[in-house]
Amino acid sequence: MRIAVLGTGTVGRTLGSALLRGGHEVRLGSRAADNEAAVAWVAEHGDQASAGTFADAAGFGELVINATAGAASLDALALAGEQQLAGKVLIDVANPLDFSRGMPPTLTVCNDDSLGEQVQRAFPEARVVKALNTVTAAVMVQPSLVPGQHTVFVAGDDAEAKATASELLGELGWPASSILDLGDITAARGTEMYMALWIRLWGALGSAVLNIEVRPGMAPAG
Amino acid sequence: MRIAVLGTGTVGRTLGSALLRGGHEVRLGSRAADNEAAVAWVAEHGDQASAGTFADAAGFGELVINATAGAASLDALALAGEQQLAGKVLIDVANPLDFSRGMPPTLTVCNDDSLGEQVQRAFPEARVVKALNTVTAAVMVQPSLVPGQHTVFVAGDDAEAKATASELLGELGWPASSILDLGDITAARGTEMYMALWIRLWGALGSAVLNIEVRPGMAPAG
Repeated sequence: MRIAVLGTGTVGRTLGSALLRGGHEVRLGSRAADNEAAVAWVAEHGDQASAGTFADAAGFGELVINATAGAASLDALALAGEQQLAGKVLIDVANPLDFSRGMPPTLTVCNDDSLGEQVQRAFPEARVVKALNTVTAAVMVQPSLVPGQHTVFVAGDDAEAKATASELLGELGWPASSILDLGDITAARGTEMYMALWIRLWGALGSAVLNIEVRPGMAPAG
Repeated sequence: MRIAVLGTGTVGRTLGSALLRGGHEVRLGSRAADNEAAVAWVAEHGDQASAGTFADAAGFGELVINATAGAASLDALALAGEQQLAGKVLIDVANPLDFSRGMPPTLTVCNDDSLGEQVQRAFPEARVVKALNTVTAAVMVQPSLVPGQHTVFVAGDDAEAKATASELLGELGWPASSILDLGDITAARGTEMYMALWIRLWGALGSAVLNIEVRPGMAPAG
């Protein structure tokens, strides 16, 4: 499949490289077509890899991944172009983190709204799936770094889009039984607000390579 | 130990009953000394159980548990009395959930503050430990309802108070290795904001009897 990855940071490049290994064609999108990180990434990865502006990438991709910084995502997606997102599965892996007030970061949107919802409202024809934003880039593409089975979430309004995203998660190493569908795109509030806990887990464990396993229990007796 | 449990809802009564089984004396506190739920609970549990106003309970307890509704916790603790909380370990298990706008609930405080921090600021001499607010009442007192080992968090500014709270968690069935210390009381933001995810997990799994296991991973090669 031709996949656009918007964002040339660690998350975008890590996802892009993993998708190339999976046999996809990947175009990294950034604000400037001569973005250094993107040019270096293309040089490293050969002819299935390409780079361009957000619009170049979105035009190329049959599926689009938003891996831009959350605070910049709406602008980046506007540059990608509403028409070029229309009808496509848009996997939103961004978190609306605001580091401007120091550590720990706060969220630019939360509680009664989320970045996932903002993206879906701003691009109503895109088929937004919130996914992968609860793990660090290395775990996104190599879940086996964390022992045993652990959980990745999908949320979105379009069941087919969630199925497509789940297939892609499967290619990245996430067994179907590890993928938990949280419902519609409003559930992005849950996975984005989990960042406030995730950052503390990172601090407590001393490494961002971590995840949670969600485990159901039994009803209490009586 | 003499323990005050503020709040006579499911959480307060469930914790109170479990602490009685563990050999503690428990006084439930509520706004009115003749609170029906509290009176019935005392009648059911015999002479180590008692009930009274928030102030009666706080005066009785060597350790205090805040199990009131989060939106009412600061008022309830004010009625308990600042002097009666001073120097005591105060385990805050409440979540600042606001159901007034329907489901899903929002939080009355989040992002750059938390109920745990508000409580610590309002009662600076209390030794606040945020704990147990990430699981439903049944799991708080019977973690074995969820198979395998899973995680409970403590957060607070006073290391000794966290050690005391962790001992009490041990009595409730939480192995020491399942207790994760997230740091100071600001980490309450993390565990309270996790509610936004927890509510979606409840919906997705169809039961509130669930928990997460936090699992560290290995650093990626290269």
